[in-house]
Amino acid sequence: MAYLPIETPLTRAFGLRAPIVSAPMAFAGGGRLAAEVSRAGGLGFIGGGYGDGDWIEDQWKLAGDAAVGVGFITWRLAERPELLDRALARGPRAVFLSFGDLAPFADKVKAAGVPLVAQIQTLAAAREALAAGADVVVVQGAEAGGHGSGRATLTLVPEVVDLVAGRALVLAAGGIADGRGLAAALMLGADGVNVGTRFWASREALVAGAQHDAALAANGDATVRSSLPDMARGFDWPGDWNVRTLRNNWIRRWEGEPEGPVSDTARAEYARGVAAGDPEVAPAIVGETVGLIHEILPAEDIVTRMMREAREAMSRW
Amino acid sequence: MAYLPIETPLTRAFGLRAPIVSAPMAFAGGGRLAAEVSRAGGLGFIGGGYGDGDWIEDQWKLAGDAAVGVGFITWRLAERPELLDRALARGPRAVFLSFGDLAPFADKVKAAGVPLVAQIQTLAAAREALAAGADVVVVQGAEAGGHGSGRATLTLVPEVVDLVAGRALVLAAGGIADGRGLAAALMLGADGVNVGTRFWASREALVAGAQHDAALAANGDATVRSSLPDMARGFDWPGDWNVRTLRNNWIRRWEGEPEGPVSDTARAEYARGVAAGDPEVAPAIVGETVGLIHEILPAEDIVTRMMREAREAMSRW
Ligand SMILES: Cc1cc2nc3c(=O)[nH]c(=O)nc-3n(C[C@H](O)[C@H](O)[C@H](O)COP(=O)(O)O)c2cc1C
Ligand SMILES: Cc1cc2nc3c(=O)[nH]c(=O)nc-3n(C[C@H](O)[C@H](O)[C@H](O)COP(=O)(O)O)c2cc1C
Repeated sequence: MAYLPIETPLTRAFGLRAPIVSAPMAFAGGGRLAAEVSRAGGLGFIGGGYGDGDWIEDQWKLAGDAAVGVGFITWRLAERPELLDRALARGPRAVFLSFGDLAPFADKVKAAGVPLVAQIQTLAAAREALAAGADVVVVQGAEAGGHGSGRATLTLVPEVVDLVAGRALVLAAGGIADGRGLAAALMLGADGVNVGTRFWASREALVAGAQHDAALAANGDATVRSSLPDMARGFDWPGDWNVRTLRNNWIRRWEGEPEGPVSDTARAEYARGVAAGDPEVAPAIVGETVGLIHEILPAEDIVTRMMREAREAMSRW
Repeated sequence: MAYLPIETPLTRAFGLRAPIVSAPMAFAGGGRLAAEVSRAGGLGFIGGGYGDGDWIEDQWKLAGDAAVGVGFITWRLAERPELLDRALARGPRAVFLSFGDLAPFADKVKAAGVPLVAQIQTLAAAREALAAGADVVVVQGAEAGGHGSGRATLTLVPEVVDLVAGRALVLAAGGIADGRGLAAALMLGADGVNVGTRFWASREALVAGAQHDAALAANGDATVRSSLPDMARGFDWPGDWNVRTLRNNWIRRWEGEPEGPVSDTARAEYARGVAAGDPEVAPAIVGETVGLIHEILPAEDIVTRMMREAREAMSRW
């Protein structure tokens, strides 16, 4: 499958054919997915997530010789800073940090000559990312799957584009799953997009089949942001961040009792749900774009379709 | 000030030069604003809001012979249905209903040969609007100023475009304040945009100067959705709807005590804030785009700038 490249400052800086980045998705975004996205002309990221060093090593191996980057949840990386050294030793195409203070890691990444990507959720955090020397600012709206917070992609992207004023590249994240969303992001002034949910719904993602089925059956009204899954998993997320997932039976059961899911019984039940991939216990971690996704596709096809659709949307005007 | 028209199914259906609608903003959107937007090539709406019949009559007079529409808050209209008859007698260009069950009013509007515009916040509500015969579905994301609820414009617009499949026109609302936003909405498949906050920040809006000043000083991180202003005003909003405003001193004071602002003292204080236009008591009712607005402009200039910027954004690709 072929497509005509779209050139932006991002594609020029990274030598890409598509201004499409696959998000460093904890658990779901492994080396195969990252490699396929990079081979398809985008830029793939391994989801270093909460920082399991051996898992990350395995994913580097699966990525083979594809040029991929790696991402970390910053407040977790602060507890295991050696993982950054191990990652830099792998020669990543970029390091992607989200959710926490990136200043303590910025110098090391930049000293290694590796581009620093910082995902932010507010204008205030965009200022901090710039001050820390981020080369790429990923502007994430609350419609995103996974962790995030309150602002919307549609307003925060142009506001950050104006703030950054060319001093860094800007990617839009949250709510982009097809070429219409990619074209919209380019109109807002973004240099490209960081896509999670759509790649979560790919063949290469490390996702249980029942989770994929639950997502395909859902529309975009069916998601919710909450802290319940993190409480049940014992992940002590700081700040205003919570996680967008499908609203499933387990969440419906506990959302009235937000202190509920921390009991041993509740945690054990949740852990069993994760292990079994049961979407009515451990909810699918997807964003509002779940309503735009009707098929699990190879990552290469996702890139190709997004590019063709974006060109079609843009050429209509 | 001139601009090149942009043609869409909306502009063809209504004979416009710009696919831009000014939202029917309660209190703020009067006849002068609506008329200026229509004269500038868009489609202006009088904000019939909570339904003060005399105020609405005055606004019709101020609109003069401009072709404008009128909007109502549907659950309030249900308490004063005669206002719809009075509005239809005025020969409105369209009737715009939001926030409640439009089915009881749809037949009357359509029998009068007046286009029915329905604003919705979920895919489920879009289905109901179609079933009720809406000619225009306005897809409102939570980044919007004023009342609304959870979904984001960026994901809900394409999802509704797919649902509607040409059976109605689709407008994007929430988060659109400049030509970048207009271009993005067109890429998503919308036929036009419904703009509130940007027209609230116009010369013709019925807004106190201190409120405008507070908005110009704020960035997009500074807004919040809450029910506190409605509680203080004694507006008994049903459903999941709440109102996006600047987060001011008054909200900071009460947000920890959500039952607080209903005492007589608190209500009197709020009413004084409204009367005085004091933005630290009665917050400016604006959306996240407040961070993209740096100047109070005549409505005509807002339309012209949006059109020029949109064309510029689109012609770059
Ligand atoms: C399953 C899943 C896991 C995610 N994990 C991470 C993560 O570990 N680190 C991170 O920076 N972002 C993570 N994200 C958020 C993405 O970086 C991105 O902002 C988001 O997916 C974009 O919105 P979208 O899902 O609408 O494409 C995750 C997203 C999903 C869907
Ligand atoms: C001050 C203000 C008052 C509003 N009042 C109403 C209203 O009475 N009825 C209505 O349907 N929408 C109302 N809205 C919402 C608009 O219809 C529209 O959805 C919204 O303004 C779009 O988002 P934006 O503010 O980002 O442009 C209001 C918006 C604002 C800013």
